[in-house]
Amino acid sequence: MVFMRFRPQLIASSLSRAPKPSRTLASPPLAAAARRRSLTSTLSLSSSSMAGAAPSEDALRRALAERQAAVDAQAEAVRSLKAAGVKTGVDAAVEALKALKIEAGAAARRLQAAVGSSGGGGGAREEFRQAVANTLERKLFYIPSFKIYRGVAGLYDYGPPGCAVKSNILAFWRQHFVLEENMLEVDCPCVTPEVVLKASGHVEKFTDLMVKDEKTGTCYRADHLLKDFCKDKLEKDLTLSPEAAAEFKHVLAVLDDLSPEQLGAKIKEYGIVAPDTKNPLSAPYPFNLMFQTSIGPAGLSVGYMRPETAQGIFVNFKDLYNYNGQKLPFAAAQIGQAFRNEISPRQGLLRVREFTLAEIEHFVDPEDKSHPKFADVADLEFLMFPRDLQLSGESAKLLKLADAVSKGTVNNETLGYFIGRVYLFLTRLGIDKSRLRFRQHLPNEMAHYAADCWDAEIECSYGWIECVGIADRSAYDLKAHSEKSGVTLVAHERFLKPKEVEKLVIVPSKKDLGLAFKGNQKMVLEALEAMSEKEAMDMKAALESKGETNFQVCTLGKDVVITKKMVSISMEKKMEHQRVFTPSVVEPSFGIGRIIYCLFEHSFYTRPSKSEEEQLNVFRFPPIVAPIKCTVFPLVKLPELDAAAKVLAKELTAAGISHIIDTAGISIGRRYARTDEIGVPFAVTVDSATEVTIRERDSKQQVRVGINEVASVVKQLTEGQSTWTDVEFKYPSHLGPQDDQE
Amino acid sequence: MVFMRFRPQLIASSLSRAPKPSRTLASPPLAAAARRRSLTSTLSLSSSSMAGAAPSEDALRRALAERQAAVDAQAEAVRSLKAAGVKTGVDAAVEALKALKIEAGAAARRLQAAVGSSGGGGGAREEFRQAVANTLERKLFYIPSFKIYRGVAGLYDYGPPGCAVKSNILAFWRQHFVLEENMLEVDCPCVTPEVVLKASGHVEKFTDLMVKDEKTGTCYRADHLLKDFCKDKLEKDLTLSPEAAAEFKHVLAVLDDLSPEQLGAKIKEYGIVAPDTKNPLSAPYPFNLMFQTSIGPAGLSVGYMRPETAQGIFVNFKDLYNYNGQKLPFAAAQIGQAFRNEISPRQGLLRVREFTLAEIEHFVDPEDKSHPKFADVADLEFLMFPRDLQLSGESAKLLKLADAVSKGTVNNETLGYFIGRVYLFLTRLGIDKSRLRFRQHLPNEMAHYAADCWDAEIECSYGWIECVGIADRSAYDLKAHSEKSGVTLVAHERFLKPKEVEKLVIVPSKKDLGLAFKGNQKMVLEALEAMSEKEAMDMKAALESKGETNFQVCTLGKDVVITKKMVSISMEKKMEHQRVFTPSVVEPSFGIGRIIYCLFEHSFYTRPSKSEEEQLNVFRFPPIVAPIKCTVFPLVKLPELDAAAKVLAKELTAAGISHIIDTAGISIGRRYARTDEIGVPFAVTVDSATEVTIRERDSKQQVRVGINEVASVVKQLTEGQSTWTDVEFKYPSHLGPQDDQE
Repeated sequence: MVFMRFRPQLIASSLSRAPKPSRTLASPPLAAAARRRSLTSTLSLSSSSMAGAAPSEDALRRALAERQAAVDAQAEAVRSLKAAGVKTGVDAAVEALKALKIEAGAAARRLQAAVGSSGGGGGAREEFRQAVANTLERKLFYIPSFKIYRGVAGLYDYGPPGCAVKSNILAFWRQHFVLEENMLEVDCPCVTPEVVLKASGHVEKFTDLMVKDEKTGTCYRADHLLKDFCKDKLEKDLTLSPEAAAEFKHVLAVLDDLSPEQLGAKIKEYGIVAPDTKNPLSAPYPFNLMFQTSIGPAGLSVGYMRPETAQGIFVNFKDLYNYNGQKLPFAAAQIGQAFRNEISPRQGLLRVREFTLAEIEHFVDPEDKSHPKFADVADLEFLMFPRDLQLSGESAKLLKLADAVSKGTVNNETLGYFIGRVYLFLTRLGIDKSRLRFRQHLPNEMAHYAADCWDAEIECSYGWIECVGIADRSAYDLKAHSEKSGVTLVAHERFLKPKEVEKLVIVPSKKDLGLAFKGNQKMVLEALEAMSEKEAMDMKAALESKGETNFQVCTLGKDVVITKKMVSISMEKKMEHQRVFTPSVVEPSFGIGRIIYCLFEHSFYTRPSKSEEEQLNVFRFPPIVAPIKCTVFPLVKLPELDAAAKVLAKELTAAGISHIIDTAGISIGRRYARTDEIGVPFAVTVDSATEVTIRERDSKQQVRVGINEVASVVKQLTEGQSTWTDVEFKYPSHLGPQDDQE
Repeated sequence: MVFMRFRPQLIASSLSRAPKPSRTLASPPLAAAARRRSLTSTLSLSSSSMAGAAPSEDALRRALAERQAAVDAQAEAVRSLKAAGVKTGVDAAVEALKALKIEAGAAARRLQAAVGSSGGGGGAREEFRQAVANTLERKLFYIPSFKIYRGVAGLYDYGPPGCAVKSNILAFWRQHFVLEENMLEVDCPCVTPEVVLKASGHVEKFTDLMVKDEKTGTCYRADHLLKDFCKDKLEKDLTLSPEAAAEFKHVLAVLDDLSPEQLGAKIKEYGIVAPDTKNPLSAPYPFNLMFQTSIGPAGLSVGYMRPETAQGIFVNFKDLYNYNGQKLPFAAAQIGQAFRNEISPRQGLLRVREFTLAEIEHFVDPEDKSHPKFADVADLEFLMFPRDLQLSGESAKLLKLADAVSKGTVNNETLGYFIGRVYLFLTRLGIDKSRLRFRQHLPNEMAHYAADCWDAEIECSYGWIECVGIADRSAYDLKAHSEKSGVTLVAHERFLKPKEVEKLVIVPSKKDLGLAFKGNQKMVLEALEAMSEKEAMDMKAALESKGETNFQVCTLGKDVVITKKMVSISMEKKMEHQRVFTPSVVEPSFGIGRIIYCLFEHSFYTRPSKSEEEQLNVFRFPPIVAPIKCTVFPLVKLPELDAAAKVLAKELTAAGISHIIDTAGISIGRRYARTDEIGVPFAVTVDSATEVTIRERDSKQQVRVGINEVASVVKQLTEGQSTWTDVEFKYPSHLGPQDDQE
């Protein structure tokens, strides 16, 4: 997986797992406008949270500083007047001071409003988040795990509706990716021996920097403390000079790239202490995020709970390539649990210690990254946030995928194809397209081997959250495992007809080398064979002209003299029948829990009850996502309606449609409200044994349908073969007493 | 989960996880006959393996011992004759000895045949298992995990077809159980804090007994060594006396109930040494099978990878009960990974270190275990193996479920309902009903709190394998968590009208107790309040007649004198509005990997190729299980056929049908063979752009269908809306050149 993946080749890799700070200070105006349209909720996000661009914040800080300076000067003047015993003018001076204070207060409020919103913690956002969270926990979408034992930070259970949403999303993922692309799905264990994660670099580098309270031993994530400190300063310290504000913003921007020493120095410089006790903190040191265990009874074999599912695919490359008839490209996929022993989990489902990943490894010839189905997605247009827009401080822009690929913004067609497919996947789930953007990694975020990386980021009340990473990781992973395991992980391209190629041939004479170098023979021999074409041709020329030449053997740490008879060097023409290469891998990696959480926020709205006395909660899940597809309500308690409802339920079960019967003795309106709150798209009121009413959740429109047609009507609606509009067109509409919440 | 569950309340609980040894010595004749019918394979299991009952084995041992004694006596006689120099009669005596040896040899062979088969390791079985395993590994149904690093014992990957079979089985499980019963599905983490597994008993008792090679430190499962030794003796040592054979059989039968000391004593008695080195072994000691880890950065919080998914449901009982509107019965379900650090994994997918469980916890009023849908399964008839049949040495019998419940063989309707549903589930997957039986736990296998337990056992080449456990665990688990967490986990039954009940009321006088007992007051008070109704009424009588009485306070370790004014005791009539109770739980628990492996064996057969030169492998998976539903072959390489195949593939994708296009330049027969080998049920040969041929895998029958009807025909077939017979009836049959393997 790319998202949240550490980069073993980068010096500051240990920090790069943190969600990338959003480098845009202003969100795209289009997004704000579209969101305003889409939010029918009274608990919408404050639209002002999308305003407040950096320059105006700077201007506000400067204005506040000027006003404050004027206040200070005037106060000084008043004090001087009073001290000098001068009576005249004191009252006027005090009045002037008051007026200046009022102005400064207003400037402070303007600044407060600006920074409060750009920091992402605005009051409306917080209120919206709380309203969603309350509904989600009350309805058991998710709950803290092991609650009766006071829980464990970073571990959550999906209760019945959440679990259904999750398995619906995974089923759609399989349909959209695995089935559509004929991917090879695999299922590997979570318990992983150390050797595999040494090869991948996780044992050495999969770390976060940690500091400890020097007295209590409580641990904190070093970058979180620094980040919180800077954000707090920016949001709450209104006396901050524009220069100081710029410094804190810079720290936030480079947070991921600070070395342990730099991070420690900043913590010291700012006097940051343990938040709970105010005790001093230790220097930052790396903490490996993998859960460690021991495999087998002897306790000798170290294992870890896998931090990602991708490695299971890489180690199986050879078998999978053979299974695919030794043909490229092909993709393998895996859905499964992954584990990260976070230092301080926060943000609910967004940063947890155990989570479900769905990962794809698409293996492709590095010399041909075209994609046969690119045309299917080429015309899609959505918010993209390429590197240059981020660096120039601009916002994400609507771009056509075909253009982004043809202009080289996106590195290649295969990467572009997957970006398009991810866009379709997320929006079909119900992610609001105006709050979805594809952000390209900046050069300092990418490992040196990566060709290009894009993150699908979804905006929620916590800001822009990286939910899918789509990376062209070149040949890095296969080469790492090839080297460590000694098993060659390569692909072959058989030529239609053999090709003539020129090849460097170096043939050392073991006998002569042995006579000359005795015990050092092997080192010299290896150095000779390892020469580049240029080195070899230079040596050939020297030997031909002078008969001998000096040659540096690094492993011996000195030069040796090579004579003509010790080695023969030539360029030879050879017929080659195939090309052997390590495939590149394009890796879309989905954090399922993050997608689910963002979808919850995007799907949630409130609307007044019929009496307008209260706000009712609704999740507008599309039918494929909805935890329950349909509820069945007998209108009143009558044996024949109960019996009809039971027959209907049996038909729904046979058709594979999840449903509940609600026979509670409360009004239909109350029952609608209960079912809207878990996002059930269709409700069937059984008011006769022959004909019933089907009501659609969001429009609250109703139609009359014969009871024995209901299962097939609902099945077609939930499987996408017909829309509500089709149904309204076909069946008579209905306006009965039960047409709305009471 | 019940199957393979340890029983925390039993003394020898640590061993009870082992698969229960099959206590039937003869398999039911019906099963053998049915299997013979069902096996079209040339690699069928030897039917002789189903013969050989215990009495005849004893008789054979006795016969062999007699023959051997005769041989020994005659040999002695020959030696005596020779020693005495007597010539006459020597030749005759030698001839007689020869004849006796031949007889003894024949007796040994008869015994060998008998014990060789009853041990389950017959040659045909082994050959069949190898043939299946070769196909499974070659086609990547499953492969050892981390193979390029030489693997880890007990960890397996599911490759593409295996992974598809697994997710099809899980999808069907959801449809058959969760949807059908409106179960509340949850999804809890694998990482579990220690406190939860202390409450469940796993920390203390989830162990196997281990012995160590005293020189090398290599670990072995103590019971495995003893079991292997006894089986080896029984199968290979033909000189064993019937008494010794009986002793070894007895050890095998009670293996699960031996204490560490008894197990150690047997190992010593038999002189069992380390199999690899012949070094002496340590005494057996318990090894906890949970993978341990540490949660959080401080390293202070012990966690384990869950050994079963059930605990996640129990700790959520209160929320789930409320979610269900405080109504009983209801069931919760969970599918997920579980982990057991086996000492010495063996038998491939049957005993592994990480596996998928699907568990149901059906909560029910202990006073009413009827099931409203029992009638739906009451008429099912299948092989059941109740306790009394096992104890009397008989075989499993065909029983009607309704009878088994009404006669009390199965404890209650709810348990019976789930047994029936499990039977339907397994047979619809393709498990051969003649090799499936429900075996009741013997009294010594069950925990004292369990009301009744049945295992669905499937016969495969490893013997009868416990694949699903169905247990009525009474209130044990909820009570354990209630006690440990302090959170009451109970249900309420509200009475339609309040009930008058007599209740014992004990009111101690704190003042008088305090004056009399000072610091001991609390202990006396608690002891008074804890009196049973009888104790209290006896005290009341004594106080009324004598004014005072002696009273034993255990916590003080002595008697105290209680006077009349210290306590008032009465029986009072009260109106109760509800009954509060801890629900019972009926738990069907499915080992998905074991079911999959048995299904592979039951689905596999071979048939000759058309030329009869080779045997071709086929998996007869039903369409819901098949990893790929349909293959598409363009008959010959022609652009218009390729194009038609592509259009067809798109339609199949849109209909959600997994498929592959095979355009390899090999004969259709070869392509059929490839697709039969991974169990694809339908193959479509595109021989024209308008009409194509659909071929069914097992019958090899073909029909002609218009190309634009194919997707819907295949969809109906794979979703069970039509059968192949329907299709053959509706469409013209076809006998073309591609009608069979070449």
